[in-house]
Amino acid sequence: MQLLDAGSTDEWAATFTEDGVFEVGDSAVHGSEDIARAARKVADEFAAAGVQRRHWIGMLTVTPGGDGELTARSYALVLEIPTGGEVVVRRSTVCTDRLVSSGGQWRVKHRRVTRDGLDPA
Amino acid sequence: MQLLDAGSTDEWAATFTEDGVFEVGDSAVHGSEDIARAARKVADEFAAAGVQRRHWIGMLTVTPGGDGELTARSYALVLEIPTGGEVVVRRSTVCTDRLVSSGGQWRVKHRRVTRDGLDPA
Amino acid sequence: MQLLDAGSTDEWAATFTEDGVFEVGDSAVHGSEDIARAARKVADEFAAAGVQRRHWIGMLTVTPGGDGELTARSYALVLEIPTGGEVVVRRSTVCTDRLVSSGGQWRVKHRRVTRDGLDPA
Repeated sequence: MQLLDAGSTDEWAATFTEDGVFEVGDSAVHGSEDIARAARKVADEFAAAGVQRRHWIGMLTVTPGGDGELTARSYALVLEIPTGGEVVVRRSTVCTDRLVSSGGQWRVKHRRVTRDGLDPA
Repeated sequence: MQLLDAGSTDEWAATFTEDGVFEVGDSAVHGSEDIARAARKVADEFAAAGVQRRHWIGMLTVTPGGDGELTARSYALVLEIPTGGEVVVRRSTVCTDRLVSSGGQWRVKHRRVTRDGLDPA
Repeated sequence: MQLLDAGSTDEWAATFTEDGVFEVGDSAVHGSEDIARAARKVADEFAAAGVQRRHWIGMLTVTPGGDGELTARSYALVLEIPTGGEVVVRRSTVCTDRLVSSGGQWRVKHRRVTRDGLDPA
């Protein structure tokens, strides 16, 4: 998430598998290429608006699956700080990742984000 | 705290010992049964109001005691997110737990929560 | 940071090396003695105003340097809670520390804090 906050959207998208899925609420983006493209668009909008985003991950639990996968569940908080302005706690979410080991690195095969107050838990 | 946020109040209360004590400010609840009952009441109120709570634990320090107990001190932040509404950072607290090992699991024998701005530190 | 929040400014300043540098934005304090003095002044002001500060550190990455130093990069959030008042998320920052081992303890040789919305990243 630090890569995303730094605007390094390609590097961030590379933490997904090539066929990775990124679900937020009831919409989903399929494939790391499209995930990178979507992230770039959002990052450009925030940069143009002069808003720094900060994603905080916490309360992590990791559960091994029988098939070598891991399920990582965490709370994620999204902060937005406009140039010269106050910190806004924009969103509280729960993030559930299915992780697979690929090339000596854990990658996200499936990420599901539910936004508190907006999406059903 | 994730159990509490999910409304699983009995499971959450089971992280206390049977004779566990839960102190917040100058009030205290004694015994995991009463702790469960009190938590259920609060959880029902939040559910009825359509408010999601999120407890974040951070800045943890763990100190071993001479008697096999552990003292765990952490900051805890309480967020509230109403349906369709903005994130509210409701409370900043310090949580001090005395933990005992019981049946292969650490349980809370005594939890003391001080709420910043309300309770003496 | 818990020492700082507790008003134990000397103990907090002792986590720096004697010649440690503390940079925030484009100002810098040199030497643990001056760092302690500056921290004391700020702590006294907050105490006089009846405001509790809480520093949350998260999203930590640690990178070893070739020379036995460590670079620790983290997000740091500064909360302020006035007596009887609401929690204010005052500041979101990125904290980059160069740590050296000294007397069996890691100490901060150089800390650079950039404040989101105020300082260039």
